[in-house]
Amino acid sequence: MVQRHEQACPIAATLNVIGDHWSMLVLREAFFGRTRFGEFEKHTGIAKNILTQRLNALVDQGVLERSEIGQMGKRFAYVLTPKGEGLLPVLMAMADWGNAHVYGEGKEPAITIDKASGERVPALWPRMADGRVLSRKEMRTIDGPGRG
Amino acid sequence: MVQRHEQACPIAATLNVIGDHWSMLVLREAFFGRTRFGEFEKHTGIAKNILTQRLNALVDQGVLERSEIGQMGKRFAYVLTPKGEGLLPVLMAMADWGNAHVYGEGKEPAITIDKASGERVPALWPRMADGRVLSRKEMRTIDGPGRG
Repeated sequence: MVQRHEQACPIAATLNVIGDHWSMLVLREAFFGRTRFGEFEKHTGIAKNILTQRLNALVDQGVLERSEIGQMGKRFAYVLTPKGEGLLPVLMAMADWGNAHVYGEGKEPAITIDKASGERVPALWPRMADGRVLSRKEMRTIDGPGRG
Repeated sequence: MVQRHEQACPIAATLNVIGDHWSMLVLREAFFGRTRFGEFEKHTGIAKNILTQRLNALVDQGVLERSEIGQMGKRFAYVLTPKGEGLLPVLMAMADWGNAHVYGEGKEPAITIDKASGERVPALWPRMADGRVLSRKEMRTIDGPGRG
């Protein structure tokens, strides 16, 4: 699907699974509750052959689950797995950045709100469990337990 | 660089700028403080011609700033702009997901810590300003002010 990155890096690992712009748009639609090939096609503008390939890859990677919905294996629904649902922050962080840095304040085409309060969900940013927001300089990336 | 998505969507807009797996790895290195062509080449494994193209595109998009560092325009440094620094949550959310869902707990190759406490920075997740964590079902994406 995309070139495999061999580095032991969690970003490269993620890119190996979803680092294709079409896959991201398919996942966006899955988060909006679309499940059908025709819905993904209509709402992303992706070509049928590429959509087939991307859906198969996302199923193979365990991000989407495919289930038959009648007609003897000719109709399928695609639903996010828990692994797929875990991509929510990636897509939301992308939406935050596109709104802030491509469209700009007051020109956002789509925003996410908290249903309960109706307020806009703040842009994602790293913070500690006690709520303390971290600047880039307050963080450091180090080898993890899986580094050989 | 990548196919331009014409949809009025902040995710598609972001993908138009950085929706290329090589660009993401270049940005990863920029966040690690690398500034030089040779450093990006070494740490990503990207081919020289593709690296040139990606760096130019990221400069054109205002994500990286190029500055001459002597030798009459033959040596350059590439540094994140504020717009580029805004991509931190996108890369961190990708790293979180790769660690959790590709490598798994205890096998993370790289983790990010809070320098002050030495504790691991929790995975990014949407929450309101008062700290309340939101599940997917508690949120709704609606048209923003820029929707025509």
